[in-house]
Amino acid sequence: MYQKSFLLLGVFLLCGLSSKAQKWSSFVNPFIGTSNYGATYPGAVAPRPMVTVSPFNAAGEQNVIDKDSQWNSMAYWNENTFLSGFSHVNLSGVGCPDLGVILTMPTSGELTPHWQEYGSTYKNEKASAGYYSTTLEKYNIQVEATASRRVGISKYHFPAGQNNVLLNLGLGLTNEQGGMVKVVSDQEVEGMVTVGSFCYNNPQAVYPVYFVMEFSEPADEFGVWKEARPNTGVEEQWMKSYNGELRLLEQYRNHVVGDSIGVYMTYHHEQPSTVEVKVGVSYVSIENARENLKAETSDKDFADILAETQAEWDELLGVVEVKGGSEDDKQMFYTALYHTLIHPNIQSDVNGEFNLSGHQGFGQTQDYDRYTVFSLWDTYRSLHPLMSLLYPGQQSEMVKTMLDIYQESGWLPKWELNSTETYTMVGDPAVAVIADTYLRGIQDFDTKVALEAMKKHYFTTENNPVRPGNKYYHELGYIPVEAEKSDLFGGEDNGEARVWGAVSTTLEYNIADYAFGQFAGALGEQKLSEEVLAQTKGYQHFYDPETKVLRPKMKNGEFLNPFNPKDGENFTHAIGYVEGSAYHYAFMVPHDIPGLIQTMGGEESFVKQLDVVFDEGHYEPDNEPDMAYPFLYNYAQNYRWKSQQKVKAMIEEDFANTPSGLPGNDDTGTMSSLLAFSMMGLYPESAGSAEYLVTTPRFEEVIIHLDKHYYGGKNIVIRAPKSDSRPYIKSFRVNGQEQDRLFIDHKTLTEGAQIDFSLSKSSK
Amino acid sequence: MYQKSFLLLGVFLLCGLSSKAQKWSSFVNPFIGTSNYGATYPGAVAPRPMVTVSPFNAAGEQNVIDKDSQWNSMAYWNENTFLSGFSHVNLSGVGCPDLGVILTMPTSGELTPHWQEYGSTYKNEKASAGYYSTTLEKYNIQVEATASRRVGISKYHFPAGQNNVLLNLGLGLTNEQGGMVKVVSDQEVEGMVTVGSFCYNNPQAVYPVYFVMEFSEPADEFGVWKEARPNTGVEEQWMKSYNGELRLLEQYRNHVVGDSIGVYMTYHHEQPSTVEVKVGVSYVSIENARENLKAETSDKDFADILAETQAEWDELLGVVEVKGGSEDDKQMFYTALYHTLIHPNIQSDVNGEFNLSGHQGFGQTQDYDRYTVFSLWDTYRSLHPLMSLLYPGQQSEMVKTMLDIYQESGWLPKWELNSTETYTMVGDPAVAVIADTYLRGIQDFDTKVALEAMKKHYFTTENNPVRPGNKYYHELGYIPVEAEKSDLFGGEDNGEARVWGAVSTTLEYNIADYAFGQFAGALGEQKLSEEVLAQTKGYQHFYDPETKVLRPKMKNGEFLNPFNPKDGENFTHAIGYVEGSAYHYAFMVPHDIPGLIQTMGGEESFVKQLDVVFDEGHYEPDNEPDMAYPFLYNYAQNYRWKSQQKVKAMIEEDFANTPSGLPGNDDTGTMSSLLAFSMMGLYPESAGSAEYLVTTPRFEEVIIHLDKHYYGGKNIVIRAPKSDSRPYIKSFRVNGQEQDRLFIDHKTLTEGAQIDFSLSKSSK
Repeated sequence: MYQKSFLLLGVFLLCGLSSKAQKWSSFVNPFIGTSNYGATYPGAVAPRPMVTVSPFNAAGEQNVIDKDSQWNSMAYWNENTFLSGFSHVNLSGVGCPDLGVILTMPTSGELTPHWQEYGSTYKNEKASAGYYSTTLEKYNIQVEATASRRVGISKYHFPAGQNNVLLNLGLGLTNEQGGMVKVVSDQEVEGMVTVGSFCYNNPQAVYPVYFVMEFSEPADEFGVWKEARPNTGVEEQWMKSYNGELRLLEQYRNHVVGDSIGVYMTYHHEQPSTVEVKVGVSYVSIENARENLKAETSDKDFADILAETQAEWDELLGVVEVKGGSEDDKQMFYTALYHTLIHPNIQSDVNGEFNLSGHQGFGQTQDYDRYTVFSLWDTYRSLHPLMSLLYPGQQSEMVKTMLDIYQESGWLPKWELNSTETYTMVGDPAVAVIADTYLRGIQDFDTKVALEAMKKHYFTTENNPVRPGNKYYHELGYIPVEAEKSDLFGGEDNGEARVWGAVSTTLEYNIADYAFGQFAGALGEQKLSEEVLAQTKGYQHFYDPETKVLRPKMKNGEFLNPFNPKDGENFTHAIGYVEGSAYHYAFMVPHDIPGLIQTMGGEESFVKQLDVVFDEGHYEPDNEPDMAYPFLYNYAQNYRWKSQQKVKAMIEEDFANTPSGLPGNDDTGTMSSLLAFSMMGLYPESAGSAEYLVTTPRFEEVIIHLDKHYYGGKNIVIRAPKSDSRPYIKSFRVNGQEQDRLFIDHKTLTEGAQIDFSLSKSSK
Repeated sequence: MYQKSFLLLGVFLLCGLSSKAQKWSSFVNPFIGTSNYGATYPGAVAPRPMVTVSPFNAAGEQNVIDKDSQWNSMAYWNENTFLSGFSHVNLSGVGCPDLGVILTMPTSGELTPHWQEYGSTYKNEKASAGYYSTTLEKYNIQVEATASRRVGISKYHFPAGQNNVLLNLGLGLTNEQGGMVKVVSDQEVEGMVTVGSFCYNNPQAVYPVYFVMEFSEPADEFGVWKEARPNTGVEEQWMKSYNGELRLLEQYRNHVVGDSIGVYMTYHHEQPSTVEVKVGVSYVSIENARENLKAETSDKDFADILAETQAEWDELLGVVEVKGGSEDDKQMFYTALYHTLIHPNIQSDVNGEFNLSGHQGFGQTQDYDRYTVFSLWDTYRSLHPLMSLLYPGQQSEMVKTMLDIYQESGWLPKWELNSTETYTMVGDPAVAVIADTYLRGIQDFDTKVALEAMKKHYFTTENNPVRPGNKYYHELGYIPVEAEKSDLFGGEDNGEARVWGAVSTTLEYNIADYAFGQFAGALGEQKLSEEVLAQTKGYQHFYDPETKVLRPKMKNGEFLNPFNPKDGENFTHAIGYVEGSAYHYAFMVPHDIPGLIQTMGGEESFVKQLDVVFDEGHYEPDNEPDMAYPFLYNYAQNYRWKSQQKVKAMIEEDFANTPSGLPGNDDTGTMSSLLAFSMMGLYPESAGSAEYLVTTPRFEEVIIHLDKHYYGGKNIVIRAPKSDSRPYIKSFRVNGQEQDRLFIDHKTLTEGAQIDFSLSKSSK
């Protein structure tokens, strides 16, 4: 698997990068998204990593946001000041707390194992792709971090005197408890810690993260600590001196288990000294963690690994070369790409083994990597299309993984995390992704299995864990509000999961089924295709001519009353909708905007209503449902300039080269993929449509080095001279041919399109 | 190591047992000591076992004694009725809670993982050496248990229907917390559980017990459970449905850790069926637990192992053959021997590895077993002399282990438990045991190391962890009460551990030093011997002519005032004494009873004062200090009949063939060794003296088959015709020669003495 990373590099090298020497990774600003609930982390990572080394400042009342004070999915928050370690498994941009564990911390002076005591403020943070550094003010220790895919490497610059490296398994972002640790020698520690039940959704979905920790020099002293649950009653009296207390077990080499345990390695340095610490991780076993560590970092030091990881980032980021634009633009763009290259991430160990959620044992990869962290309600919209365009090899392996998950569990994933299905969010996004990938020409997966899975998802109307409400969906063509909350409506409970957001969910099924229908058609399943596609107009049941939105409906066909289309804004709850209001879903039919226009009574009416959303402040760029809205004016020939305007405004107002530079949760790179597409002047129309909406690129030139295997290895060259000062499109030529519409299809693009914009300062 | 057990058997076979077919094990009543705080257990064991399978009824308010309601060292209490499992590591006869973990439990019907729910009353208990059986009334399941040295084997007789085997790692006698478990397959489970801090003395002394569990048939379903510590605050709201709750993880195959975890294996039996469950244990690792399991029980079923273990018991118990006496007498005698063959027990795995307390890593045996559970304040008095007489090979290995502990830790053990020193009780008993063993002719250990260790113990007057008060002891010849409780006496704190019981501790050092002095003399260290022996009269400083007891003294030589020699009775605290009163220590100078007699003013005065102890109710047979008292009349030529009377009374009044048949804690076989000696008509005079006090045997004939290697393999034959009705000794002949005194030396005995008593009904 490690070899595979090189193989991957090899592919890119074969692409003939024109500027291999260019340090694209230097444009990455990992602090983007570390505030404003972006939920990204600034720590060191390799692409699609199992391991990260990232500062953990989520604990402590002295912080602005303490993890236990609110729903908090962030191990790092830029405004926080109290750091209690560096976590080695982290989720980027998600909305629920999990992982954020295996905390390492260097300290100097006397040993203080309580994180409240050993924690420190910090300064001089620096971060780039694959690198992070800060100085702990309490100890004046500089910490540098880098990582290979499955191994984190930290370098501690210690002052002379007593120095300690702590490993804390009793603190983390996850809500699960329990770890195990064993000091193997004065240079090695092994153990595990329990994580899981992401979003508090599935208490069964708990599983261990295993690790092996290796120190560059033997410790002079070592030990473990354990804080046990206090005994009560008479035992409390007898155990008085140590009841519930943290006990240090010096030079201890047995297994220690508990909810609050840790390890210390102590050095007595005569001179200022550096110690490097490697942490190899596996979700399968300690043995695999050790194998991962050896395979990826044996005989390599911090500098070697940093160089390798930066090179890997340069290769991947260099798939897109931009010219022009400001320094901020470049940093925003490459950081966006970088964020899309974190999740989905590798799940399999170097030997190919991976965990099957604990409940199903273990799996073994064949000839492709096993991926995990499929936040598909988010990512199906633009992240996976971006991957299909830029990294089709990775996208192919992600699809293969999804099909493997189907084979293992009987269902495609929805929100998969380390082989556990968290059933977070709604819709049937895996169908959308797989079909869409095929339609973009990435077809080297088992299409028979894919068709079988999609049919099962589509046709199973009873006890369908992915598609609650599917029976109504088929019977009525839409999901009525009764399915959502049967106690409110006196409705029946047919044993299915309750539907969250009857309108939203119907729309999601429509989109997924559009992709499914196209896919079936492409496979020659014409009848099936027609049947399924017919279903995708279901959203029209909800169209309310009065409010001009898609309004929740009852089983009897009547609209929900009372009804306010603003209900659901700012993440409040509203019947019919998922994390949004009627406004956020009014146009969420990307597969059939022409149909919607028709339903709404034509382009003028459509544009007018879209204007209402923007002008009256209903557009919420911090979540997915309305993320395509700025592009939708493209469908109204006379108002296309509004897309150019809105997209520019979005880039400038909702994104920035600052910690607050993401509008909200990055959602495993989804918001970043929106930004990356937007800055290239493209946006994928819909799952199942291989068309892109076109707008003004942010850069004067964008060169996409197409994958050789999937696309023949030519370049897409997008030229938009003076784009920085001229936001509006006067002409749009593809391979020299003036285009009437601001659309381009995937095939044309990936055959190596030359795109030329002629821009203007004015929309007129 | 398993081979070794056979080797051991071989030795006994070579001894030419006259009645190998005799089932000596059938005389063992394992229920003796399971009430009245005897603290023995009725479960199935092999000799000197690492593993036991014993019913655990220590938990639950419905029981007479609940483990959490008082200081409770018993995993089983005969009067209790609510059984919540079968524990696989147990201590026999100790006074502090520890171990009592790895609980297995068969149930039928629906799975109920809470012990309060799955627990059951039970009936039809049966036990013999190596076998235990009971029927769980709630389920009508008969449980049979047997064990090899490192593997417990249970056989569950299930009714038809759903049946479950539970493994509970969240319940036990130990006060430590934390376990880990993993289902390896539908027929195998592995894990560990934390135990330690015996007597709450040393919170550092925590360590894991590892296990592997093997099932005779694959489970139809399996899973683990985990009850997590509840979260508080906002997380409590989000985790509402499972916060702090017991979660079942079905078909789960990852590691689970926690304070309250367990495993279930479920069967759906069409017919009534049996399932056999083997639990192999190791204190080193799971791998070793598996290796122990394979080596000792591979390809063997319950019946095979039961037969082997019973044969092993028959061989060891058959070293002594008795004739005459009642059935109760025989059961009491062989059960006593059985109890002396439980501790010290094997600590090393079949591959020879053993744990060095966690803090020092691991050890490896060379050519002898590693022993553990050295409760030496108890056992030095009579248990080890009995081992030297009957099982010198085992005694030799125990001494070698003690010397290894010295090499490892710098000090000989005091109260050693699984390589942790618990520093329970007082004195320097290891010195006494090692010297005594040598003086009895068992000399195949490293005497140089032994001498070095004894010198270190004796001469180290500062920071001597084994001998607090040693500086006073050397300076004053005794330990003053100031050393005991410096705050009370305004005394200094010299950094040493406080002395517990200045008088008692002085006496203990005197005894140990007597043995040391004799040992040094035997090694030709004449000067050292004389110096040390001079110190052993130190007890005389305490003699108070007024009260005729050994009375605590101040540094300035004045006696403690006020003073009541009754203080300290019934385990109350008294200055100067350890678990006793002045009466219990007044004669505790076994190494110098003639000197004491002289100090007291002659035999008449001595006897009068001894009579006071017995007649006025100060004799407490439930603890060690006065355990030799019944024999002490032997020193007064005219009152020897009183010993014959008192020993007979002790056997009949303080011991019985019932659960209450031990006077108190068996103290790892110490009380049982007193009984075994007494019933043979012998009692060892003192550590360092190879003499025995002689009294009327309980049996008409006692044949001791002497060890061939150490003693040449002859028999000791003790004949006491009509001993059942004639308690008093008229004549005592050794090898045909009438003896003037009722003493016999170890050398004469072990050369194969023929002893003939002529008995009388009258003491006159």
